[in-house]
Amino acid sequence: MQLGRMNHVGVAVPDIEEAIAFYRNVMGADDVTEPFDLPEQGVRVCFVNTPNGGTQVELLSPLSDQSPVAGFLARNPAGGQHHICFEVPDIAAARSEFEAMGKRILGPTRIGAHGTPIFFVHPKDMQGQLTEIMETPKGEH
Amino acid sequence: MQLGRMNHVGVAVPDIEEAIAFYRNVMGADDVTEPFDLPEQGVRVCFVNTPNGGTQVELLSPLSDQSPVAGFLARNPAGGQHHICFEVPDIAAARSEFEAMGKRILGPTRIGAHGTPIFFVHPKDMQGQLTEIMETPKGEH
Repeated sequence: MQLGRMNHVGVAVPDIEEAIAFYRNVMGADDVTEPFDLPEQGVRVCFVNTPNGGTQVELLSPLSDQSPVAGFLARNPAGGQHHICFEVPDIAAARSEFEAMGKRILGPTRIGAHGTPIFFVHPKDMQGQLTEIMETPKGEH
Repeated sequence: MQLGRMNHVGVAVPDIEEAIAFYRNVMGADDVTEPFDLPEQGVRVCFVNTPNGGTQVELLSPLSDQSPVAGFLARNPAGGQHHICFEVPDIAAARSEFEAMGKRILGPTRIGAHGTPIFFVHPKDMQGQLTEIMETPKGEH
């Protein structure tokens, strides 16, 4: 695989509006995107942009008790780091390479919060980290 | 506070050499720094550089059973995301602001793995995330 940039760190939060206020008022973020629902993933999402086009913080709150993030918050009520996302130039090639290495891929390749194809790899095969692999948006980098 | 770039994501690993091999062979990283001991923090450390000066992965393995990372690995034997680090222009100003907000700062300001002053803030005051605040290295950004 060809490692691309770290696109974002996914952070589970119990209340997305409260988390946005935290990033604005405590951390001093001045660029937070509008939250939107991603029903396919069972989450409400927004991004905290860091300076100079840096890696984003993706805030994730559950849309229902069935959301994968709901399970995470049941174990970590205050929230916390949920996954890490790296870009790749070619999602199909990356998927084939992970499959060939015997890594457990969680579900089909689908469209993620940035509008490009993504898939997740099981934390037990990834040094304990739930890992999102995301195709670099066209026209970027 | 003025939010700077996300400098790195700290990832606890039981075996740093095995983790380096993972990032090279599975993730396709081609730029990993030499590991070195940071006895003041009780850890052995190296950085995985991501393309275009992106946010780094900091790999952390414990130097002893007393290491803070040893406790994390006891709870998460495979390893996992341990902390997140954001840069600030002025570490003393940032510390004063966190103190004024009543955030629990863990220990004194000290020199971190990049050779600039850092401090950690308690995850319970930071949306569940152990957060490192680091002064931007001079001459960068």
